[in-house]
Amino acid sequence: MREVFQQSLREVQDRLVEIAELVTISIEKATQSFGNSDVAVAEEVIANDNRIDQLAIELDELAIDILARQQPVARDLRIVVSALRISASLERMGDMAEHIAQLSRYRFPDKAVPKGLRTTFAEMGRLDVSIARKLTELLRTQDPRIADEIRNDDDDVDELHASVFEKVLGDTWKGEPVATVDATLASRYHERFADHAVSIAKKVQYLATGDWIPEATTPVHH
Amino acid sequence: MREVFQQSLREVQDRLVEIAELVTISIEKATQSFGNSDVAVAEEVIANDNRIDQLAIELDELAIDILARQQPVARDLRIVVSALRISASLERMGDMAEHIAQLSRYRFPDKAVPKGLRTTFAEMGRLDVSIARKLTELLRTQDPRIADEIRNDDDDVDELHASVFEKVLGDTWKGEPVATVDATLASRYHERFADHAVSIAKKVQYLATGDWIPEATTPVHH
Repeated sequence: MREVFQQSLREVQDRLVEIAELVTISIEKATQSFGNSDVAVAEEVIANDNRIDQLAIELDELAIDILARQQPVARDLRIVVSALRISASLERMGDMAEHIAQLSRYRFPDKAVPKGLRTTFAEMGRLDVSIARKLTELLRTQDPRIADEIRNDDDDVDELHASVFEKVLGDTWKGEPVATVDATLASRYHERFADHAVSIAKKVQYLATGDWIPEATTPVHH
Repeated sequence: MREVFQQSLREVQDRLVEIAELVTISIEKATQSFGNSDVAVAEEVIANDNRIDQLAIELDELAIDILARQQPVARDLRIVVSALRISASLERMGDMAEHIAQLSRYRFPDKAVPKGLRTTFAEMGRLDVSIARKLTELLRTQDPRIADEIRNDDDDVDELHASVFEKVLGDTWKGEPVATVDATLASRYHERFADHAVSIAKKVQYLATGDWIPEATTPVHH
C-alpha cells in the first residue's frame, strides 16, 4: 500500500511539473505578445490556457481518486490536499498570463505597453518568466532554497508594481486613459502571477520542511 | 459512523455560512466606505478580513481532520473537497472587499469613486452585496434556484464592468489618471467578487444535483 501511495504521489508530482511547464510557456509567450503586440502569439497563450485548465481538472480528479482509494492520513493527506491547492494556483497563473496576452489583442494594432513603461514591463515580464521557471524546478526537486529565490523575485515584482502606480499618478505622466487602464491591469496581472507562485512555494516548502506558514492576506501595493 | 459524518458535515456547513455572513458584512462596509470615503469603516473591513482569514484556516483544518478520521468516499468525499474550495473562494471574496475598502483609504481625504461613475459603482456595490446575501442563503439552504439568481446578478455586474471601461476609454472621460486607475481597480475587484460567488454557487449546485460543471476560465470583460 505504501509503495502504491508513493507511486501515486510521483504521478501527482509529475503532473504538477507538467502544468507548471505549460504555465511557463504561457507567461513567456504572454510577455512576448504584450511587449511586441503580437496577436498570433496571444492566440497561442489562449489555446495553451485551455490545455492548462484541462490538465488541472484531470489532476484534481486524480487527487480525489487517491483520497478515495488510498485514504492517506497525516502528512500524506496534507500532501494530496496541497496538490489540489497548488493545481488551483497554477490554473490562476495561467489565467493571469492569458489576461496579459489578451491586452495586446484588445489594443491591436496599437501597442498595449504604455509609453514610458516599456522598461518596467519588460522587467516585470522577465521576473514572472524567471519565477515560473523556478517554480517548475521547485516542484520537480522540492529544494526549499528555490522557494526563497521565488520570494525574492516576488519582492522585486512588488516594487515594480508600486513604481507603475507612482509613474501613472505622477506629474510627468502624459498617457491617455487607455494607457492608464492598460498599465493598471497589466501591472496587477503581473503582480498576481508572482503572488500565486509565492503561495505555491510556501506550500512546497511546508511539505519539504514541515513548517507551516498559514496563507497571509495578499497586500495591495500602490 | 454515518451519523458522525453527517454531524461533521453540518459543522462544516455552519462554518461556511458563518464565513459567508462575515464576507457579506465586509462587502456592505466596503461599499459604504468606497462610496462615502469613510476611512473608519474601511478599517473595520480590514479587521473583519483578518477574522475571515482565520476562520477559513480553521475550516480547512476541520475539513482535513474529517478526511483523516472519517475517510469519506464518493459523494461524501467530494463534499468535503468542495468545502475546501468554497472556503478558499470566500477568503478571496473577503480580500476583494478589503481591496475596495482600501481604495478609499489611499485616496482620503479625496473621494475614491471617480466622478461620472458614482451611479455605476453604487449599482455594482449593491449587486455585490445582494450576491453575498444570496450566497449565504445558498450555503444555508442549498436551494439550487438561488445559484441561478447569483449567476444573473453576476451577468449584471459583468455588464457594469464593461460599461466602466467604455466610459473611461470614451471621448467624454475627463478623469485624471488617479480616477482612471481607481475606476479600473474598483471595477475589477467588484467583478472578481461576483465571479468567486458564481464559482461557489456552481459547486453547491453540483453537490445538490450531481451535475458537474467544470470550472471555466474566467473571461475578461473590457
